[in-house]
Amino acid sequence: MIINFFMPTKVIMSEECIIKHADLMKEYGKKALIVTGANSANNCGALSDITLALQNQGITYDIYDRIRSNPSIASVYDGAAFAREKESEFVIGIGGGSPMDAAKAIALLAVQDLKEEELFLGKYDNLALPIVLIPTTAGTGSEVTPYSILTNDIKQTKTSIQAPLLFPKIAYLDARYTKSLPMTVTINTAIDALSHAIEGMLTIRATYVSNALAIESIERITQCLRSLSPSKVNSENQLSKDIREKLLYGSMLAGVVIAHTGTTAVHSMGYCLTYFKNVDHGRANGLILPSFLRFIAKHDIELAKKVLSAAGVASMDEFEAIFLRLLGDREQITVKEMERFAAIAFQAKNIMNTKVIPTKEDIENIFTRSLQIL
Amino acid sequence: MIINFFMPTKVIMSEECIIKHADLMKEYGKKALIVTGANSANNCGALSDITLALQNQGITYDIYDRIRSNPSIASVYDGAAFAREKESEFVIGIGGGSPMDAAKAIALLAVQDLKEEELFLGKYDNLALPIVLIPTTAGTGSEVTPYSILTNDIKQTKTSIQAPLLFPKIAYLDARYTKSLPMTVTINTAIDALSHAIEGMLTIRATYVSNALAIESIERITQCLRSLSPSKVNSENQLSKDIREKLLYGSMLAGVVIAHTGTTAVHSMGYCLTYFKNVDHGRANGLILPSFLRFIAKHDIELAKKVLSAAGVASMDEFEAIFLRLLGDREQITVKEMERFAAIAFQAKNIMNTKVIPTKEDIENIFTRSLQIL
Repeated sequence: MIINFFMPTKVIMSEECIIKHADLMKEYGKKALIVTGANSANNCGALSDITLALQNQGITYDIYDRIRSNPSIASVYDGAAFAREKESEFVIGIGGGSPMDAAKAIALLAVQDLKEEELFLGKYDNLALPIVLIPTTAGTGSEVTPYSILTNDIKQTKTSIQAPLLFPKIAYLDARYTKSLPMTVTINTAIDALSHAIEGMLTIRATYVSNALAIESIERITQCLRSLSPSKVNSENQLSKDIREKLLYGSMLAGVVIAHTGTTAVHSMGYCLTYFKNVDHGRANGLILPSFLRFIAKHDIELAKKVLSAAGVASMDEFEAIFLRLLGDREQITVKEMERFAAIAFQAKNIMNTKVIPTKEDIENIFTRSLQIL
Repeated sequence: MIINFFMPTKVIMSEECIIKHADLMKEYGKKALIVTGANSANNCGALSDITLALQNQGITYDIYDRIRSNPSIASVYDGAAFAREKESEFVIGIGGGSPMDAAKAIALLAVQDLKEEELFLGKYDNLALPIVLIPTTAGTGSEVTPYSILTNDIKQTKTSIQAPLLFPKIAYLDARYTKSLPMTVTINTAIDALSHAIEGMLTIRATYVSNALAIESIERITQCLRSLSPSKVNSENQLSKDIREKLLYGSMLAGVVIAHTGTTAVHSMGYCLTYFKNVDHGRANGLILPSFLRFIAKHDIELAKKVLSAAGVASMDEFEAIFLRLLGDREQITVKEMERFAAIAFQAKNIMNTKVIPTKEDIENIFTRSLQIL
């Protein structure tokens, strides 16, 4: 039995947890850098909570709010230059995966002189600014992982920086911040989290403990999916506090899972849809996942059954129906695009991380089954 | 939903993990103190593995092997004086709960001047030598907890030092070290671990995540209990590698559970049997646990059912039968002793940590049902 478990982040989840547990930040310095996007941290209330909490603790702060979706390498170098200029002592990331992942890279680059070509090589000094993360969506799990995913224009996909020193010191989880999310964002992020938990079970690095956490995550998230509906897109606040808390909890757990297992071919394939077709990351995973699980089931039916059982469904058809209902019409791509995406996805390292390693032809078949091919 | 999760220990479990992952210790210094008992670390092979691993890394070491079962406060002050004299930079504890718990207290006392009356107050500077733990039994879970349990002659019971800075940096788990344990030790430690996982579910601090881990732990351990039998007491090596690994894994997970939840009245009651009647700690918990769960069932049947379901049994009688088979004849105590023990146990703070708080009369009834009263 081989078990490696390491997740040093302090997870603090409760209503008003930032205000109540602000003292935990004191040991990281007197000057914080808040990294976020243009609006979301502000709109959901997280920004006012964190600034009040910092003031209460006598910690000053600067705000870097220039992070966009699927952050570029240039943007994190820019953020790191800002951190150096401001002499920030620790970094607070607020938002979905993009600001949180950017905050991690900024924390690294603020204290290490890394050239762009060294950024993804994994050879870092044991040095980064302490990181505090506050998710405002329930999807990425970035608040408990050592990963920072950036858009890599050289490789024409998304690439991850991975290092234990990127584990956040603290993750503050307050489900009030997900209250005003549009329903599509809630759906796509929930599917992203579900995909993390399921993919974790499908990796060669899955262990008893990662599976136990994955199953717990899958159970909680799928219980909530029944309450989500794309037809509710424009009405706010229609999800109960209980549902939002379970989704946030489930996505955190799924983050703990992939912190140990990594992801699979689903993510490599999804990245192509995001990079070339601008499909939202969670949605991209959700488009691929059912066909990918069918592929797994062909080779390892017991493994697929474990996933279906955790998801509370009896068959692959029932599993797929969940995604059909939530995602609606699938994107169209040409045969040529499909072949190109398969070629790129096949190069990704998480292909080899999958318990049943797909061939390039398998990947093409899964793409074909998952999208509308023109 | 309130979830606090923090377990910063790096858990490394595999065959020969100390040798294979010795480099992880390098960052903690060039001079180690090995804390252990008189024989067990030596007999099981852990001591020769760790000394070879340290030599490979160019780390020198001293050995303090004067830890006895249920370590006294005096013994950890003595060990700390030894650590100061040797200028040890980090502490490696090898053994069952006693050497591991002593190693934690020594790591604290080696760098903090605490008077005996301050030892259990929880007011420490944020300073302790880094701690590496190597369990040689599958029971205590101390390798992943922030607790050090010492025998407290003033309070006539066992008392715990608790502080996040006592979390070990690394826990090396190699089930080869449990191979030569006598069957009674295997049984008593397995029951200790099972008690941790079950008690975790019965505390007011139980959360979704601690319950998920507890259920995983209970499932694995109870699967193994079927292979244990007190009649096999004198034959060695009769347990498969798979069983020993599952027990070690299950006890580690149960440690993660109580690191978050603490324990219940079962532990307070068991401590009396250990302190006054010299009953082994795991056995003491096992004597109390079935009657305690019956008490819980009377007040919260759903909670008790969750435990029974994880243990793979259909009824309280079936649950109790597991313990009757493994523990054999119960100890005898007088009515007077029972009343005295109940009075002491009722003072312990983990009484209030129980979902259904027992009265002193409840505790007397549970003692009466659990032992032979003369």
